[in-house]
Amino acid sequence: MLQTIAWTGQAVRLLDQTRLPAQTVYIDITSERQMWDAIKRLAVRGAPAIGVAAAFGVYLAVRDYRGSELLGLYERLNAAADHLGTCRPTAINLFWALDRIRRVSRDVGRDTSDLQSAQAIDLIKQRILSECLAMIDEDNRVCRAIGEHGLKLLEAITHRPIEILTHCNAGGLATVQYGTALAPVYLAAERGIPVHVWCDETRPLLQGSRITAFELKENKIPATVICDSTAAAVMREGRVHAVIVGTDRVAGNGDVANKIGTLSLAIVARHFGVPFYVAAPISSIDLSIVSGEQIPIEQRDPREVSHGMGKATAPEGADIYNPAFDVTSAELVSAIITERGALRPPYGAALAALRGE
Amino acid sequence: MLQTIAWTGQAVRLLDQTRLPAQTVYIDITSERQMWDAIKRLAVRGAPAIGVAAAFGVYLAVRDYRGSELLGLYERLNAAADHLGTCRPTAINLFWALDRIRRVSRDVGRDTSDLQSAQAIDLIKQRILSECLAMIDEDNRVCRAIGEHGLKLLEAITHRPIEILTHCNAGGLATVQYGTALAPVYLAAERGIPVHVWCDETRPLLQGSRITAFELKENKIPATVICDSTAAAVMREGRVHAVIVGTDRVAGNGDVANKIGTLSLAIVARHFGVPFYVAAPISSIDLSIVSGEQIPIEQRDPREVSHGMGKATAPEGADIYNPAFDVTSAELVSAIITERGALRPPYGAALAALRGE
Repeated sequence: MLQTIAWTGQAVRLLDQTRLPAQTVYIDITSERQMWDAIKRLAVRGAPAIGVAAAFGVYLAVRDYRGSELLGLYERLNAAADHLGTCRPTAINLFWALDRIRRVSRDVGRDTSDLQSAQAIDLIKQRILSECLAMIDEDNRVCRAIGEHGLKLLEAITHRPIEILTHCNAGGLATVQYGTALAPVYLAAERGIPVHVWCDETRPLLQGSRITAFELKENKIPATVICDSTAAAVMREGRVHAVIVGTDRVAGNGDVANKIGTLSLAIVARHFGVPFYVAAPISSIDLSIVSGEQIPIEQRDPREVSHGMGKATAPEGADIYNPAFDVTSAELVSAIITERGALRPPYGAALAALRGE
Repeated sequence: MLQTIAWTGQAVRLLDQTRLPAQTVYIDITSERQMWDAIKRLAVRGAPAIGVAAAFGVYLAVRDYRGSELLGLYERLNAAADHLGTCRPTAINLFWALDRIRRVSRDVGRDTSDLQSAQAIDLIKQRILSECLAMIDEDNRVCRAIGEHGLKLLEAITHRPIEILTHCNAGGLATVQYGTALAPVYLAAERGIPVHVWCDETRPLLQGSRITAFELKENKIPATVICDSTAAAVMREGRVHAVIVGTDRVAGNGDVANKIGTLSLAIVARHFGVPFYVAAPISSIDLSIVSGEQIPIEQRDPREVSHGMGKATAPEGADIYNPAFDVTSAELVSAIITERGALRPPYGAALAALRGE
């Protein structure tokens, strides 16, 4: 499988997803600023992958700290985490990962209070790197577990092949390696269950056709690309047995923020009686907010819509509205698939219990 | 206003819509074959405009007939009409217009049975040209009447500006001059009622951003371009008071074929309680079929999806499904706005009565 993020010992190696599907180019990121740019321009994207990438971004910032003062290290760390926190507002995993690195560094700081400052600094750097590497392992385990729980839901479907529809990319390239929404698909294929995936192309940046169709092809899973607006026609034809998408943030009541177009898909799936599943690592659940209304929605450059074709496709000066995400009400979600099992509505208590464990 | 189709005396002048919005280029069509190509590659598009263009295509074929036999003329005419009928299967207006030209030519043929063959040929050519020119006038009257009936529906909306969402282009550039779905918008603006239009960009060929946003800008109507998948988010925000779309064919039960994505929009509008209106000239009603299931759906080149960006946006060899239209069930349509008034469900009897008048 393709590797989205890897640590080379010197740098964070990212598959530059803006170049897919034409070119498979890896870029080595060696500074926090480079990481910020890579996340901002979507060279690395997908909520889980963004979290890990941001954690490494903080590590790169502290690794290069040459001072001898612990305070200076913490200042550097906090500045890096604050800066990385500005690059994409919607995916909670970003903030979750940054908080985790801050916490680890504070904990090490306490444990090393009897050490020389220089020794403590080295130890903190090491612990942050270990934490980043642990996050890679964890991400793989989490995705695999989501795959198992998702597959149980798919196994209830009697059609062969099982026809899955997905939006954007919540596959291996949205995580370190395995994917959230696509994990059940990969597991099904591994176990010899025929599957076919409808990939919404996902305007404006075409993550579905550029990335999902690409990774499915690499992994020899049959797939068909459609325009986002075609999903309803395919469902009307009875050719979709389940929709599975990822998420950038799940609110306390089960409302789901995900790539723009997800809401439309959820409504259409409900209309045709097709189950609508959200694959969500527990790290994407944000109990600090009660509903989707409070999830900040990233607004992106209008030129992604008007100039995506390499030339202007809207009249000069046209007004354009380009939110990167939308919010799907919990009532439209058939199940939220986490690494600890699939939750069914009503979600409020189930989510709280899960995070409280 | 921009003129989609005009007769110069020598040629049919078309605004080449494949060049919009960057360039306003007119092309002079002088043969049936050129017209077939222009319709096929969507230089002229939109059900009503296609009808008029096809009628002119037949005229160009017979105009150039140099034989002296009436039978030869009819053969030429029928061959041209048959050929033009192959270029786009979904819009019924195409067949309606071709049948109308066939009927006119037969009627003239009967009336001129006492004339010399050469005189009869000249007369038939003249009558076909007259019929084409009459179709231009009629189209303008029909669109204007649809505008009046549609405006009555919009006037029930108390918000200002009235926020309309439309898909693809059923504006002036889909008709000879005035538009079907956009006619009520233009009339509202003429009468000083503030309106704002959300334009679905309409993948894969972007008629919404390239053409609808363009003509609204030319006519100084405030408009905002969105990705098709963003329509649900805008409706969720309460910023759409009515959806109005055109149609390529209305079945006897009120099912509506229109640009791919219309079905999704209708389902989402229903979910949010937004009225969903279809502007339909009576010429687009096809009582010969009982439901939308029987409407032939044009499948177009997969490269419209995979290579729309000027470079490959899907992996080499990816499977792609690219239907140009979908079918919206009558139950999702709040009203069908014709030139003789807005019909309300159930549509079966109302449509039959209208065509029977």
